[in-house]
Amino acid sequence: MSTEFHCITVISERLLKDDLIQLMKKEGAKGFSITDSVGEGSRGIHASDWEGRNVKIESIVHGETAKRIMEQVAEHYFEDYAVIAYSYPVSVVREEKFK
Amino acid sequence: MSTEFHCITVISERLLKDDLIQLMKKEGAKGFSITDSVGEGSRGIHASDWEGRNVKIESIVHGETAKRIMEQVAEHYFEDYAVIAYSYPVSVVREEKFK
Amino acid sequence: MSTEFHCITVISERLLKDDLIQLMKKEGAKGFSITDSVGEGSRGIHASDWEGRNVKIESIVHGETAKRIMEQVAEHYFEDYAVIAYSYPVSVVREEKFK
Repeated sequence: MSTEFHCITVISERLLKDDLIQLMKKEGAKGFSITDSVGEGSRGIHASDWEGRNVKIESIVHGETAKRIMEQVAEHYFEDYAVIAYSYPVSVVREEKFK
Repeated sequence: MSTEFHCITVISERLLKDDLIQLMKKEGAKGFSITDSVGEGSRGIHASDWEGRNVKIESIVHGETAKRIMEQVAEHYFEDYAVIAYSYPVSVVREEKFK
Repeated sequence: MSTEFHCITVISERLLKDDLIQLMKKEGAKGFSITDSVGEGSRGIHASDWEGRNVKIESIVHGETAKRIMEQVAEHYFEDYAVIAYSYPVSVVREEKFK
């Protein structure tokens, strides 16, 4: 088993979905799992409280790719949008499937 | 990057959604991602087999907050409801967003 | 708290849902959380690009069970289907609930 991969997770307002997937692809993500969710609460310094339809985008990527995606998402979207991003290491088998 | 945060995940029958979010807010969770799911299988000592509409509530919180939420959920709901809770450490950037 | 458990996650085309749950049960998984999602991207060596309705199946199991499920899923489905599987360690309370 390999543990060099991370699950990068980005949760945002739905209007950002295509932009975020494009950003993630540019940084090296290949496949995505996209789930509808509902967000509730306040997040970020500037974002006001919100409750609304969100999208959760997940991708299995190299740890370094996950870090770059998080940095890019933070730089471009954290100030003005209700977006969060986090990653965690995962074990996979047959890692060539994810490359 | 910071790794002091955890993703706390609580999956339950939907009727508990508001109660669980209130419990999690009381323990310090600020923002939530809520996803509809379907549960299948037997869980817990007293819960009988079930298959039904569930809700998955996720929040990024400090590790200590995650532990308190799990303890509270177990104490109040494990005996009588089909509920599970687990947490795992996540990496985030710009951690002030989560405080 | 116990950390001997993993969240095993299998994401696939929906037509495989029942087969995958049966496989996971056979390897020891007891309860499942099943979420609809949308897949986008290319995965695997043989699978062509696809975008479509997927299902995400999650279960909290022993680490060894997670590994066996991943091996089984890879052996039976990776070549011919758009399927991914990964696992990660989680903390739980009252671990007897998961046994």
